[in-house]
Amino acid sequence: MEALAVTAVAPVNIAVIKYWGKRNVELNLPTNSSISVTLSTDDLRAITSVAVSPQFSEDLFWLNGELQNLIGSKHINCVNILRKERALLEAADPGLKKLSNWKIRIISENNFPTAAGLASSAAGYAALVFSISKLFELDLNQTELSKVARVGSGSSSRSLFGGYVAWQAGNLENGDDSVAVEVAPVSHWPNMRALVLVISAGKKSVSSTGGMQRTVGTSTLFPARHLKIVPERMSQMEDAIRAKDFGSFAKLTMCDSNQFHAVCLDSYPPILYLNDTSRAVISFVHYFNEYYGAVKLAYTFDAGPNAVLYFLEEDSAQVLSCLKPVLPAAKIPFEVDEGPSGFCFDAMDMLKIGITDIVYSRVGPGPEVVETSLFAPGDKFVPITATQR
Amino acid sequence: MEALAVTAVAPVNIAVIKYWGKRNVELNLPTNSSISVTLSTDDLRAITSVAVSPQFSEDLFWLNGELQNLIGSKHINCVNILRKERALLEAADPGLKKLSNWKIRIISENNFPTAAGLASSAAGYAALVFSISKLFELDLNQTELSKVARVGSGSSSRSLFGGYVAWQAGNLENGDDSVAVEVAPVSHWPNMRALVLVISAGKKSVSSTGGMQRTVGTSTLFPARHLKIVPERMSQMEDAIRAKDFGSFAKLTMCDSNQFHAVCLDSYPPILYLNDTSRAVISFVHYFNEYYGAVKLAYTFDAGPNAVLYFLEEDSAQVLSCLKPVLPAAKIPFEVDEGPSGFCFDAMDMLKIGITDIVYSRVGPGPEVVETSLFAPGDKFVPITATQR
Repeated sequence: MEALAVTAVAPVNIAVIKYWGKRNVELNLPTNSSISVTLSTDDLRAITSVAVSPQFSEDLFWLNGELQNLIGSKHINCVNILRKERALLEAADPGLKKLSNWKIRIISENNFPTAAGLASSAAGYAALVFSISKLFELDLNQTELSKVARVGSGSSSRSLFGGYVAWQAGNLENGDDSVAVEVAPVSHWPNMRALVLVISAGKKSVSSTGGMQRTVGTSTLFPARHLKIVPERMSQMEDAIRAKDFGSFAKLTMCDSNQFHAVCLDSYPPILYLNDTSRAVISFVHYFNEYYGAVKLAYTFDAGPNAVLYFLEEDSAQVLSCLKPVLPAAKIPFEVDEGPSGFCFDAMDMLKIGITDIVYSRVGPGPEVVETSLFAPGDKFVPITATQR
Repeated sequence: MEALAVTAVAPVNIAVIKYWGKRNVELNLPTNSSISVTLSTDDLRAITSVAVSPQFSEDLFWLNGELQNLIGSKHINCVNILRKERALLEAADPGLKKLSNWKIRIISENNFPTAAGLASSAAGYAALVFSISKLFELDLNQTELSKVARVGSGSSSRSLFGGYVAWQAGNLENGDDSVAVEVAPVSHWPNMRALVLVISAGKKSVSSTGGMQRTVGTSTLFPARHLKIVPERMSQMEDAIRAKDFGSFAKLTMCDSNQFHAVCLDSYPPILYLNDTSRAVISFVHYFNEYYGAVKLAYTFDAGPNAVLYFLEEDSAQVLSCLKPVLPAAKIPFEVDEGPSGFCFDAMDMLKIGITDIVYSRVGPGPEVVETSLFAPGDKFVPITATQR
């Protein structure tokens, strides 16, 4: 069978200045800019294999082993934008194969803890767009690709870069200037660490898109956030990252997480993503920083109760020591002592009950092509089965 | 013994447009105006007996049976303001007894559920100021008295009136225009009902005064609230009360409670008063209103997890029916059926565990002089004991 295939991995990113509110739902154009840290694909990743062949009779997409309906999906919208880019190349160089006319098969998987409510779609769309761009040999840089991924999932635009990434809201109606750019590469500040605390919750009561639009439509505090506060914070956060000023980075991260949840609460009906365990994490972090007399630890919460903690590598033993009594023992990434005996905060029991899983990670690079394929051996181009791995 | 005594009761009030933020801590001058509903003293009340005598050798104050230290207290500040007013009368009419020079004894009690975190100081200062004004035969109306009570506790200014009450923030440095006024008397809209849901909580993490000043100092959303949003809501809420428009009253009440907690969350470190049971109450209320297709029920939360629900008398059976499975049975104020069988919301279990006590109440009048005294029989002017009652 004549076919071409590529496999790529893409990272998750965890925003430190939050994206919340769309000025255009169709194009995923945000009301405000945002900044994130890309986490290492060693720990959390989407992996996507794509193949095109003149012998495929239809486009097919498997996500975590399940065949999906591509018709009308945002996935096929992204594929079609990239096909148009390929068609331009083919038109300019008649020697090129007409891949833009071939059907595509896509297999995507992620390794996130079940129900983590982590940014799986961000990594997924970034892996999709990146792998197809390589397959089609497109001459598009990461910022240009981020526009395509953004159409699939707003925050996936930021997963096209490693390190520290800004997604500029942009002003244009068509979204051409709503793109991700690098604030600083991994190498600039490589000792950033992250600890994902998975907190069990019932079903997510409000979807992100629904929640954002409820906030845009009803929160009377929201205009102050997106018109004035976030623009100021964007430059403060960029400065903190460039200066490797963890204290400022951490304080801005916590304030912005809290403000995102504040405008959710100010929506009607209110949107309440944080639960008592989330509140206990917040108490823990402020207690920790007060105990050590410096802002060495930050929390951030996305649209759910799970926390992500940021800290520097040099403080990671201290952080894990203090959290050791409440974390699943098997998951602690390296040997740590018990925390100091005077360290005792109110909500210890709540954390012990509420934290169901953890992932220790670090700042990492953007999407990369990898050798491993999710297609089964041979030339059938169907998903590899568990026994074939 | 030559002595004069008066006893008065004063109500609690539960704000529907919230007071949060002081522009002057000493004088309790607020950053924004507020509106409350006064609850009936049949259900929740402070009762205060005051006596003056030329034979008392010192000022004494018993609160809930415990002798308090009056020196430097806000209670004695209020007493002294009223003494000055009395002194003016005495200067103008030499025939009056010189009560302003006599020492005072004060006994105050309230009947609020333990740890309810209800507005006990509001009722307490209102009862203190009102009873002394009667004892001194001062010619001050409720608005003028509200200024004196405000110095003790900001929200107590609103407990000088029954019914629906506004506390105008005022502009003057000395607070002379920061007073309570009647929006509408009880008789205007007498069918307003309230259900206080007492939700157990650990110790209050942040005092109101401390919390307010943290919000004023750190919340970047707060200016939008006190400069623009609350002024607009004040007139909307006054209109809703005057029009007896429960739907608007309820929606404004819920939005304003949520916004108050939003600016708390936007403070640094964040202030988190709502817990999972509070969240469950919020879910219940929105579910109830959606189930019945009309906004018939509102929640509001002060600086703690306890909820106060507002509804009209004609809907009270419906409200209590739907809450019956989660309320302490002995406390339901009248016979109600089980709620409709289709009525089932997520957080039922959370409410059952979290609600520890309830108080059913209604809109009620302002402070009143009563016959009952808290002084023991005879002329010793000490607190009545349990066996003497």
